[in-house]
Amino acid sequence: MAAFDLGQIDDVIHGRLRLGIMAYLVNSEVADFTELKNALQATQGNLSLHLRKLEDAGYIEIEKSFLARKPLTRARITDSGRKAFAAYLEAMGKLIDKAGPG
Amino acid sequence: MAAFDLGQIDDVIHGRLRLGIMAYLVNSEVADFTELKNALQATQGNLSLHLRKLEDAGYIEIEKSFLARKPLTRARITDSGRKAFAAYLEAMGKLIDKAGPG
Repeated sequence: MAAFDLGQIDDVIHGRLRLGIMAYLVNSEVADFTELKNALQATQGNLSLHLRKLEDAGYIEIEKSFLARKPLTRARITDSGRKAFAAYLEAMGKLIDKAGPG
Repeated sequence: MAAFDLGQIDDVIHGRLRLGIMAYLVNSEVADFTELKNALQATQGNLSLHLRKLEDAGYIEIEKSFLARKPLTRARITDSGRKAFAAYLEAMGKLIDKAGPG
């Protein structure tokens, strides 16, 4: 890809909170809602919204269960999400490293 | 800063087209409007809008002049813009490298 093909920067991942979620999950594999909320200092509503967007893109899976009779929501990165995140990093790296003329 | 302090990711720079402009200018120092438009495959209106936003933030300066009686618009990165871009890269690097628990 050309260094300045901005279309290669996946907007689903580029959104700041979604980028935080993906960066977290690419390492932790799975995280519960409260853990993500605290780590990213997100509001409940905002985190839910962006988890949904990542789920819709197929980058994460949302698992709902119960722990000690309390509802537990966990997000897990998918293979597709890992690939998309790797592609995002590559595109950003190219943009930043090879930027400028000549 | 904490790895997940997303507030450290400067939204003025993070916007995809603005990121492209900054990445270009951090290397080229100065670029004319047509050069940026072509390199970033941007429309005239969209490029103008985002150049204005970067100018308002003090990250670039817009110089208007004439060349062979044709108007020439050039964008030049400022010292403040260089610092902001460096801080942006640092924040993104921390987010990506130190992501995940533990």
